[in-house]
Amino acid sequence: MRRWRLLIEYDGGGFSGWQRQENGPSVQAALEDALFAYSGERRLVQGAGRTDAGVHAAGQVAHLDLERPSDAKTLRDAINFHLRPAPVAVLSAEAASEDFHARFSATARHYRYRILNRRAPPVLDAGRVWWVKQPLDADAMAEAAALLVGRHDFTSFRAADCQADSPLRTLDRLAVRRDGDFVTIEASARSFLHHQVRNMAGTLSLVGLGRWRPRRVGEALAAGDRSAAGPTAPPEGLCLTAVDYGER
Amino acid sequence: MRRWRLLIEYDGGGFSGWQRQENGPSVQAALEDALFAYSGERRLVQGAGRTDAGVHAAGQVAHLDLERPSDAKTLRDAINFHLRPAPVAVLSAEAASEDFHARFSATARHYRYRILNRRAPPVLDAGRVWWVKQPLDADAMAEAAALLVGRHDFTSFRAADCQADSPLRTLDRLAVRRDGDFVTIEASARSFLHHQVRNMAGTLSLVGLGRWRPRRVGEALAAGDRSAAGPTAPPEGLCLTAVDYGER
Repeated sequence: MRRWRLLIEYDGGGFSGWQRQENGPSVQAALEDALFAYSGERRLVQGAGRTDAGVHAAGQVAHLDLERPSDAKTLRDAINFHLRPAPVAVLSAEAASEDFHARFSATARHYRYRILNRRAPPVLDAGRVWWVKQPLDADAMAEAAALLVGRHDFTSFRAADCQADSPLRTLDRLAVRRDGDFVTIEASARSFLHHQVRNMAGTLSLVGLGRWRPRRVGEALAAGDRSAAGPTAPPEGLCLTAVDYGER
Repeated sequence: MRRWRLLIEYDGGGFSGWQRQENGPSVQAALEDALFAYSGERRLVQGAGRTDAGVHAAGQVAHLDLERPSDAKTLRDAINFHLRPAPVAVLSAEAASEDFHARFSATARHYRYRILNRRAPPVLDAGRVWWVKQPLDADAMAEAAALLVGRHDFTSFRAADCQADSPLRTLDRLAVRRDGDFVTIEASARSFLHHQVRNMAGTLSLVGLGRWRPRRVGEALAAGDRSAAGPTAPPEGLCLTAVDYGER
């Protein structure tokens, strides 16, 4: 038996999320089924981040154990072959140590939230961005974002169904920048609460629209109450871009 | 009657190309139909570049004449409203002088050709890139590309059905760069022959794969014979990114 680590890209649009579930297709099930088609083994594919329905990944990491002897390139190509035509691809596979755990060994997760900020609807980026028609002030959003960085009780930015034991998280980075018609939010932390990035993005959008002053985001954080913060931004703008592990 | 200039984005995947034709949907017809729905006027929408089936645009320019009084923002929003759900959007509209002609006034056209160069199939960029699995040497491609820059007879890179009077063109820029798994080719000229960019991209791919030495691209150019150059790269990697006009 050998443990493998996979780097994975997917379009979350047609999935109920990363995690295998009763109703609806999941990325995890697509990978587990492709792995079974290759190896005849029913194995758990354990991901680093349990992305929600509609959320994309350019750098999801997962691990799995496999009896069938393989080399890394063959495993990658075989899973990709059996994944077709699902919008999921294994970018790389590599042998991992027995104690490597995609979820618990992760030391940082990096998400990107993209807003297309123009009057015309998205075309080439359709399904990959949140379309906000009214002009956003990205500098004000960046000012507000800075108030969220650090170790805080993020209860105000946590989904009602969040199963984490504690609402305390350390947000290492929350950067906002404008690049033409795009406003991009980049968030990094060891881990996030359920919907945390989307709730932060939705709240920052209120600042960008001028409805909130930046400091109100700090007040929302301090309130420790979900109703004090802004709306949940839609999933299609969110992408899990990378996961870090201590050894790297 | 007023002349208007439009900046247009589209996903060429579902279209037979820019130009209105008997069989199959065209971007031009989609725009003309949306314009008719708004104004009740049947008008020609004249584009700067007649992109082929499957080719995208992020910065196509077109002009049209309209009796119905309108302001630029209303015209933009109204055409976008009536375009739905076609993957075409008017990014901006502006009043133009009577002698402005999207095609004949253009002083430069800029195209980008993107190759996804990795073993795993495209997912988030599916339909927007040419997938080349074997490793490409982008430096060798750049060296070969430099041999095509300048004023030349581009017969070797011209489609059999090209209707241009002359095969002489001045290629102002042909840059190749690698950015992670992407190899991007950027081409700029006052005008291009039919399939010229895709034929250059396909030929450069032979250099990238190591099948051709860079100098052979110069020999293919000098041969003045389509069969001396490489294959036509597929349309989905190509995008018309911008059109310049002298006054800007």
